[in-house]
Amino acid sequence: MTLILKNPRSGSYQSGDFLILEVNTHLMNDFKVTVLGSGSAVPTSWHNPSSQMVQYMGKHFLIDCGEGTQMQIIKYKVKTKNLDHIFISHLHGDHFYGLIGLINSFHLMRREKPLYVYASEELKGLIDFHLEVTNTELNYRIVFTFLEDEKDKLLYEDKYLTITSFPLKHSIAVWGFLIREKMGRRRLNKTFVKDYNPTPEDIALIIGGGDFTTADGKVLKHMDITLPPHKQRSFAYCSDTAFLESTSEHAKGVDLLYHESTFDNSNQALAEQTLHSTAAQAAMVAKKAGAGKLLIGHYSARYKDLDALLAEAQEVFPESYLSEEGITYEIE
Amino acid sequence: MTLILKNPRSGSYQSGDFLILEVNTHLMNDFKVTVLGSGSAVPTSWHNPSSQMVQYMGKHFLIDCGEGTQMQIIKYKVKTKNLDHIFISHLHGDHFYGLIGLINSFHLMRREKPLYVYASEELKGLIDFHLEVTNTELNYRIVFTFLEDEKDKLLYEDKYLTITSFPLKHSIAVWGFLIREKMGRRRLNKTFVKDYNPTPEDIALIIGGGDFTTADGKVLKHMDITLPPHKQRSFAYCSDTAFLESTSEHAKGVDLLYHESTFDNSNQALAEQTLHSTAAQAAMVAKKAGAGKLLIGHYSARYKDLDALLAEAQEVFPESYLSEEGITYEIE
Repeated sequence: MTLILKNPRSGSYQSGDFLILEVNTHLMNDFKVTVLGSGSAVPTSWHNPSSQMVQYMGKHFLIDCGEGTQMQIIKYKVKTKNLDHIFISHLHGDHFYGLIGLINSFHLMRREKPLYVYASEELKGLIDFHLEVTNTELNYRIVFTFLEDEKDKLLYEDKYLTITSFPLKHSIAVWGFLIREKMGRRRLNKTFVKDYNPTPEDIALIIGGGDFTTADGKVLKHMDITLPPHKQRSFAYCSDTAFLESTSEHAKGVDLLYHESTFDNSNQALAEQTLHSTAAQAAMVAKKAGAGKLLIGHYSARYKDLDALLAEAQEVFPESYLSEEGITYEIE
Repeated sequence: MTLILKNPRSGSYQSGDFLILEVNTHLMNDFKVTVLGSGSAVPTSWHNPSSQMVQYMGKHFLIDCGEGTQMQIIKYKVKTKNLDHIFISHLHGDHFYGLIGLINSFHLMRREKPLYVYASEELKGLIDFHLEVTNTELNYRIVFTFLEDEKDKLLYEDKYLTITSFPLKHSIAVWGFLIREKMGRRRLNKTFVKDYNPTPEDIALIIGGGDFTTADGKVLKHMDITLPPHKQRSFAYCSDTAFLESTSEHAKGVDLLYHESTFDNSNQALAEQTLHSTAAQAAMVAKKAGAGKLLIGHYSARYKDLDALLAEAQEVFPESYLSEEGITYEIE
C-alpha cells in the first residue's frame, strides 16, 4: 500500500513513510480519505470535530459530520456533487451537529437526487423536527438506513465496493465502518487477447471462469490465459470507542485503519472511564488487525502538541500517523 | 458617538470615519459589538453565518448563533464567562444551527449558572429533543423566554440596560433587538458637593429629583446643582427582514444600527421575493431612523467583493460600514 498525502492547509507536504505525490483527482482507481475534523467534543481553535470524506473512483462518502463540516468541505475544496451517502457513527454532537446544516445547504443549492443517511434511528426524528421547525420542505429525499444490529451489517454495495457497519463500545450505541473493494475477477492476459482475438462472448465466458477453445480445438485453461485480480483495498473507521478486542477482527488486514485515540497512556484511567481509547490502545488494535497503516485522531482538547500521542502509537505500531484537518490520505 | 474598531483577523486596522484605537477591554463603560458571522444561508469560505457578540460593561449578550459560532468565539478570543443571554432572531438555520453545539460545550466545560435564551417557542422543543437523543442531562438550566408578540417586548433589564424585541418581516416570524442604556439620573455637580458637603441622605434626595436646603435656609434648585445625565447609547440588530417602514421607528436615534443587506439594488426584485433587503434599503432605514452609523451584513454568497454593496449604502447614508468577521465595533 502506498499512501499519498497532501496538506492543502499549509501548502506543504508531510513526509515519513508516505510516498509524496500530488494527488491526481482524475485517477480512476483512486481511493482516498480527506480528514475534515480530528478533534473531540470540547472545541478548540486547532481542531474541528469529527468528519472524514472518503473518495472512491469519483464517488464520495462522508463519515461523521461534526459542527462546521460544511465549512471544512468548502475550505479544503472537497466536491460534494458526488456525495450521496453519509454515515454517522453515533449521536454525540461532535459527530453529527453539522449534518442539518449540510442538509439545508444541499436544499438551498437545489439538490434533487436522494441523499442516503446511515445512522441511529433517532437522527431521523431530529432531522424531521428541524425541517418542520424551519418550515423547510426539501427539494430532495433523505433515505435513512438505521444502524441497529449488534452484528456486522451490509449498508452499501455497488459494482466495486461494500460498506459494512460493526459495533464498537461507547457510552451510547456506536458503529465502526469498513469500506472494502470487492474481490475483482481475474483479468484477461493481453498476450492471449492479441494472439487469439476472442469475441465478446468468449471474453464473458473466460471472465466468468471458463476455459477457451482455439479454432483448431486446443483447450487453453482459464488460469493460463488470465491474470490475478487487483488487490482488494480497504479502510476502517473506528470512533468513538473504548479499546475492544473485537475491533481488530472487524478491521482484519485493512490497508488503513482510523482509530480514535482521545488520550495518551497517562490518561488511561480516564479513557476507561469515558469509554475512549489511548494512542497505545489504537496501535494495539492496528497491530493485532495486521493493518497496513494506522491513523489516530479524535484528540482530546488537552493536547495541543500531538507528538507524544504519535510516539506512543508508533512504539506499538510503527506505521502510525496523525490525522490532521485538510490532509488527504490515498490508498493505492 | 465614536466607534473604535480592531480587526484581529488581519491584524490590521480599518480606517474610514472610525476613530482607530486599541480596544481597552477593561474600560468599565464599554459597549461594543463583535461580528462573528456576516454571511447568509448559503455557506462560503469567506463568511460565517450570522452571529454577533454584544459586550456591555463586562456582560456578554449573543445575538444569533449560526453554525460554527463557537469556533468563531474561540478564534476571535471572545470570552463566554459572562455570556448568560442569547437572543435568536428567527428559526432559519443560518441564525441558530450553532446553538446546540454551544449549549453542549457549556455543559462539557461544566457551566453551572443558568443560560437565558430568547427565541421562538419551537426552539425549546428542538433543544430538548437534541438533549434527549444525545442522552445529555445538562449541568445547568436553560431558561427560555419566547418571542411571540407582534409588539415590542421587554426581554431583559438590569441597572444599566434594557433589551427589547420588535417585529420584522420575513418568510417566518422574526424579531429585531434593541439594546439601550437606561436614561441615567442627573448627576451631582462637583462644585456643589465641594461647597456644601451633602450627606448621603441629601444626595439620595437630590439624585431623586429634589432640591437642597443649605444650613442657612437657602433653597438650591435641583436643576442648578446637577448636571445632565450621560447620553443613552443604543444598538439595534435587524436581520432577516424585508424593507419595512416601521423598522426606522423601532431603531429611532440608535447610535449603531445593524441592518441586513443580503442583496444590492440590481437584485431588488429578488430581495422583495425572498423578503430580504438591499444595501440601499438598509441605508434608507438608517437615514429615516436618524441612526449614528449603519453596519450592513448578511451578505448573499454571490458577493465576494462587498465594495459595491457598501457604495450603494453610503450613497443613501454616508455613515455606512461593512460588518466583517472578527471586527469589534465600539460605541463610546
